[in-house]
Amino acid sequence: MNIPARVNICEVGPRDGLQNEDKILSAETKAELINDAIEAGYRTIEIGSFVHPKAVPALADTEEVFAKVNKDNNVDFRALITNLIGVERAIDAGVPKVKLTVSASKSHNLSNFNKNPEETLKDFEECYKYAKENSLEVSAAISTSFGCPFEGDISIGQIEKIILRIREIGITEISLSDTTGMANPVEVYQKFRYVKEQYPEIKWNAHFHNTRDMAMANTLAAIQAGVFNFDASFSGLGGCPYAPGASGNVSSEDLVHSLEEMNIDTGIDLDKSIELAHKVKNLIGHETDSYMIKAGKVDDLINEHPAEQKKIDD
Amino acid sequence: MNIPARVNICEVGPRDGLQNEDKILSAETKAELINDAIEAGYRTIEIGSFVHPKAVPALADTEEVFAKVNKDNNVDFRALITNLIGVERAIDAGVPKVKLTVSASKSHNLSNFNKNPEETLKDFEECYKYAKENSLEVSAAISTSFGCPFEGDISIGQIEKIILRIREIGITEISLSDTTGMANPVEVYQKFRYVKEQYPEIKWNAHFHNTRDMAMANTLAAIQAGVFNFDASFSGLGGCPYAPGASGNVSSEDLVHSLEEMNIDTGIDLDKSIELAHKVKNLIGHETDSYMIKAGKVDDLINEHPAEQKKIDD
Repeated sequence: MNIPARVNICEVGPRDGLQNEDKILSAETKAELINDAIEAGYRTIEIGSFVHPKAVPALADTEEVFAKVNKDNNVDFRALITNLIGVERAIDAGVPKVKLTVSASKSHNLSNFNKNPEETLKDFEECYKYAKENSLEVSAAISTSFGCPFEGDISIGQIEKIILRIREIGITEISLSDTTGMANPVEVYQKFRYVKEQYPEIKWNAHFHNTRDMAMANTLAAIQAGVFNFDASFSGLGGCPYAPGASGNVSSEDLVHSLEEMNIDTGIDLDKSIELAHKVKNLIGHETDSYMIKAGKVDDLINEHPAEQKKIDD
Repeated sequence: MNIPARVNICEVGPRDGLQNEDKILSAETKAELINDAIEAGYRTIEIGSFVHPKAVPALADTEEVFAKVNKDNNVDFRALITNLIGVERAIDAGVPKVKLTVSASKSHNLSNFNKNPEETLKDFEECYKYAKENSLEVSAAISTSFGCPFEGDISIGQIEKIILRIREIGITEISLSDTTGMANPVEVYQKFRYVKEQYPEIKWNAHFHNTRDMAMANTLAAIQAGVFNFDASFSGLGGCPYAPGASGNVSSEDLVHSLEEMNIDTGIDLDKSIELAHKVKNLIGHETDSYMIKAGKVDDLINEHPAEQKKIDD
């Protein structure tokens, strides 16, 4: 099994996680969570979004949040944006990188932005130019890369058309996102193998949701296809609007735990990451899908000298 | 990615799932669940155990359960046993196969049986002889093959010692069990690759718990190592006494869903399997860890024409 020595995890909880919660946290609290993530060792963090406050009210104060974030640790901070106003806000706030997102599926892009993917990619171009003039880094995400709730299967051809446009614009970092938890490991392996081979100069990222319990298997498949960068969300926040009550993004602490169990270094202090997951759970005020919160680490199990069991077990 | 066309799933919910529930179901209800599993297409089912009723009160009436089970579909029925009395009960009940279990870890075996693994293996020998004289099939499971809550890591050497004894006895079907959800995919791949290569004549089975969200990734790793037989439990029942509140066995319907998404045939009718998961949940009277219950199939998502989303999503 071809496994790397190290992978990089981007903590997207402050953006993809919190945007999905009814309870809106204060800028101070959001900054505290980001600072805790930095303290836990995360060196890539999606700190929020600069989109219209009506679209995502929970993240309306991203400027204020970022002002309170600790900048001392050489962290790769990024914020999600969708248009030029977002670029301007990111520049003004001093956020060094923005992420643009477009859907591989026309219907999903229409639902997200009320535009065709081609129009969104035109916006990308404009945003990229303006960003570059202002020394702002730009990455891209292709939503619904592994299936769309409206259109079903998404072919590699559909994705590649968008990759080519993104490359042409000049962006060199692309995430393939399983927006609604439809990906399976075979598909993940095939798609990432293909894009890695065709476009080795691109920095590839995988973004998995655990909606149907496939995120860990998809991560394993992506790792085997040569992907080294993964998004994850603290405490597993980030549920899907199409499956209310379902699990969200793969949980950061569960992902770190699994990878470290495989002897893949993440650079993260797992205990601090679990502590952060607990804090997040308490702040949002409901149970989450974090396995580390429910079951604890393998190492804890061993160290805690468990009591006698009550059944015949295999 | 080396993926087989078909794998076989054993429904262990009637044994490993229900033994763990406070609510004891009637023999009639348990038989109904088994008959539903047969109706859903499961052709390997662990129907209960013949152990001391004080050890596992929920399964004290396995004879009565099996009497009510539909025998028309050429199903590979098996029951867990631990001693000669169990063999006798299985013979009397007409159950065609028994499963013996021994722990790779001495401490866990002592906790399970109050015996050393060597003593348990002696019991195996006695049970096997008696079973064979009575045309009863015998399989074996090695618990804690991927880690023990008392002893931590379990080496391939420890497992192999037990495999050699089991082979010597004459048993040709062995399950490596991740009893407490400690396995990781790299370990799973390495251990199954080794035993598959060394002992190709053995029918290998994998038994994973999803305690720390690694069961699907472990399944993928085992498949890649050439394993074709997997245990799973309806609605994900089968929690671990060492991690109260944690997830149980990998859920049958989630496993079927994932495999079918990968175009791996299971022979199971997924809708009927999900229906069974709902029924089980309602019977035991609490929420379960079934992702299919919470999120539904990928196909349902597409067919249900979801409503507009409320956030900017990637």
